[in-house]
Amino acid sequence: MKISHIEHLGIAVKSIEESLPYFENVLGLKCYNIETVEDQKVKTAFLKVGEVKLELLEPTAPDSPIAKFLEKRGPGIHHLAFAVEDGVQKALTEIEAKGIRLIDKAPRKGAEGLNIAFLHPKSTEGILTELCEK
Amino acid sequence: MKISHIEHLGIAVKSIEESLPYFENVLGLKCYNIETVEDQKVKTAFLKVGEVKLELLEPTAPDSPIAKFLEKRGPGIHHLAFAVEDGVQKALTEIEAKGIRLIDKAPRKGAEGLNIAFLHPKSTEGILTELCEK
Repeated sequence: MKISHIEHLGIAVKSIEESLPYFENVLGLKCYNIETVEDQKVKTAFLKVGEVKLELLEPTAPDSPIAKFLEKRGPGIHHLAFAVEDGVQKALTEIEAKGIRLIDKAPRKGAEGLNIAFLHPKSTEGILTELCEK
Repeated sequence: MKISHIEHLGIAVKSIEESLPYFENVLGLKCYNIETVEDQKVKTAFLKVGEVKLELLEPTAPDSPIAKFLEKRGPGIHHLAFAVEDGVQKALTEIEAKGIRLIDKAPRKGAEGLNIAFLHPKSTEGILTELCEK
């Protein structure tokens, strides 16, 4: 697996509307896209800092994975996403063979049309980890 | 305040020795430096992914802030550090005036000789946030 960079950091927030002023007015970043990912039951807002995106995640339903995360831990960093150069499927095959537990056995569509797959935090030093490719 | 990029992600681990194989052999990253920050009671290991460093943090004493974090939440992402272009002191003055709660009122020396200061997660969407300059 060849990782080129951190594609994004997923950040759980209760409300994008209430959180954006911190990221825009205090940190000076700019939100350039807001979209909803229906199957994950989240609304997402994207900002860029250097080569990395910050992806704010607001639950759109009480049974959204992000709603559960907020209940348990409060707002904060939810996941870390790496951009892989040689394809998510190839990466999954390779790291599963190394004993890493997968959440997604095959790539699926995420926000911004990326192919994505999640690895299980039990295998990744407690960090919910996503692999992405364009 | 002008943020240029994410300088590093701080990741709490129980043991650098036990965690490095995941980052090196599974993710394919390379550790290029290990150092101890005495006043923070941590041993740190640095890897690079694109323009961002991953800073693994292992407690060196039971009263280390990282030991307390591990006890409470287990291993995982501990803090997010931004590189600021116009100086940490200027940034602190500016964001304190915007109502952000500071942990460090003035810059201090962190790992790799950087000037650093931490902001309080109560003011930063639950993300323990560090500002850095070379």
